[in-house]
Amino acid sequence: MIDTIAVVGATGAVGRIIVRLLVERAFPARRIKLLASKRSAGATLSVAGTSLPIEELTPESFAGVEIAIGSTPDEVAAEFVPWALERGTVVVDESGQFRMRPDVPLVIPEVNAAALDGHHGLISSPNCSTTQMVMVMKPLHDAARVRRVVVSTYQAVSGAGLAATDELRGATAAWLEGRAEPRAVFPHPIAANLIPQIGSPKGGGSTSEELKMVLETRKILGDESIGVCATCVRVPVGNCHSESILIETERKLSAAEARRLLAAAPGIVVVDDLEARSYPQPRSCDGRDEVFVGRIREDESCPAGIALWCVSDNLRKGAATNAVQIAELLATKRPRRAGGVAVGA
Amino acid sequence: MIDTIAVVGATGAVGRIIVRLLVERAFPARRIKLLASKRSAGATLSVAGTSLPIEELTPESFAGVEIAIGSTPDEVAAEFVPWALERGTVVVDESGQFRMRPDVPLVIPEVNAAALDGHHGLISSPNCSTTQMVMVMKPLHDAARVRRVVVSTYQAVSGAGLAATDELRGATAAWLEGRAEPRAVFPHPIAANLIPQIGSPKGGGSTSEELKMVLETRKILGDESIGVCATCVRVPVGNCHSESILIETERKLSAAEARRLLAAAPGIVVVDDLEARSYPQPRSCDGRDEVFVGRIREDESCPAGIALWCVSDNLRKGAATNAVQIAELLATKRPRRAGGVAVGA
Repeated sequence: MIDTIAVVGATGAVGRIIVRLLVERAFPARRIKLLASKRSAGATLSVAGTSLPIEELTPESFAGVEIAIGSTPDEVAAEFVPWALERGTVVVDESGQFRMRPDVPLVIPEVNAAALDGHHGLISSPNCSTTQMVMVMKPLHDAARVRRVVVSTYQAVSGAGLAATDELRGATAAWLEGRAEPRAVFPHPIAANLIPQIGSPKGGGSTSEELKMVLETRKILGDESIGVCATCVRVPVGNCHSESILIETERKLSAAEARRLLAAAPGIVVVDDLEARSYPQPRSCDGRDEVFVGRIREDESCPAGIALWCVSDNLRKGAATNAVQIAELLATKRPRRAGGVAVGA
Repeated sequence: MIDTIAVVGATGAVGRIIVRLLVERAFPARRIKLLASKRSAGATLSVAGTSLPIEELTPESFAGVEIAIGSTPDEVAAEFVPWALERGTVVVDESGQFRMRPDVPLVIPEVNAAALDGHHGLISSPNCSTTQMVMVMKPLHDAARVRRVVVSTYQAVSGAGLAATDELRGATAAWLEGRAEPRAVFPHPIAANLIPQIGSPKGGGSTSEELKMVLETRKILGDESIGVCATCVRVPVGNCHSESILIETERKLSAAEARRLLAAAPGIVVVDDLEARSYPQPRSCDGRDEVFVGRIREDESCPAGIALWCVSDNLRKGAATNAVQIAELLATKRPRRAGGVAVGA
């Protein structure tokens, strides 16, 4: 049991779920401290029948806080993480700010919990689209060594925040009625449309979201030789990211073998009966903590490939659930902490 | 100039566009004859200010008809095509019924118009998702020999007919208001959801739509050695299919070279400036006859691969436009016709 866990960005789409999960899963802390921007400070958040006060995020917020989970934009993380580390708080950060730093473990508990050992006070939680893909790659990698993945994503709007969800609903209603569609979050119409860009342009014609899927996958699996071809697309779906993934392995796996390996893996649920029209869909995975997999089949176009369809609640396993799982390991297993601080002021 | 061209299935989603295209493009026929089921017979279709009568489809409908374009379900095509061929009518068929028959050319005019030469009276137009992909593959295949494609589709509801479009709109309105969602065409909710199944289950865990993309691609390009890994997904978009395509070639192409080849190819429009947030989207390609391509980049995960994003109006180039283009070639260039009839009674 620790004394205090803090949630930074507690009023955001993911932050709210983190707070709820801490309560629902009976996180072993005496107190949950909610931190947010000045705008939200003074308000309260109602969770499971109790009302928790929201405090303004300042450097002094972290005094006496053993663990903090942060779900904020990158620039906010860059500011608050050093404040927390200086005060001895161990930080689980959802942002992309520190993920690729060599001294920061990037952790999915079902995949690489051992990476927590010897941490320097800061642990990153991966990007949502990476997490569900790596969850699925892991059992196949252990059994047959993954050499390459080709992934096309179908990403829900919830990943872009609460305002994005409002925009999908408002724009879709306007589209149905032929009215002018509100557009503030997305650069193009989101109603009944697809936007093949998530994040900002990076070198080689890829986007930042696509580059995250390449680099984070290699870091989490500890194998820089894995090839990743990623195309990230925003779809007019409220919540849950879906991915069409082709996994090429060194040793050939049959579809039956892959299905068995996936069904036995922690945190994965196989929903795979095409004859019965049974496969994961965003609407049926909403609010669930697991990663769902279906349409598992052998790819005839390469010597050893498994094609599959993967859906997961991007706000939960893709973000909140994964971070809370990491915090649970920190609070209960207390992995060895190395000397020094990951990120200076 | 021919005397009569018939449109079979003239009241369907694609049939209506075929009729409009024949009028708008001034098809060289003295008369356009509209054929449909008994249910629609006696009604009229208004096109470009004139009202065309709809007649009931019977074996005798084809007397005096030189060319017929059919846009019907497979089982209707199986019935009417022999009627037409017996009466000397040349048929351009949109259905999947005859596409893979060795004596039936499967034609995309920009790709393999030469296949029309020596036809036996029946020509098939490919599946919508195949057509736009092969349009994009062709210039890269000619320049660098395509060895394999990995494609994930994002298919609009219009491909499932007029009732599917109504269902998307009705179900989406109900979803927004929290009412029970109408469901008749799709086996699962279509509002704010994704359905990773198009067509019926086939061997090896693939669907009929996915198998079409494999077999039709090889037939059109005349190369049985091309590998195709296809995953077909229905998305809550009204019209225009989108595809995330990875094209692996024998010779390495740079992104710049691929972009040049695509921009120079007939029927293709390159929209590709990520910095300016410019790429094809379903809403911006609606009602257009071309195939649109963007997000063109080199794949770092294989020795010679180009990843790209392709959008096309599945009712137009994916169906109506392609069939009308074939009929235009038949009417004006009059390709040599071989003896015999493709399909017996």
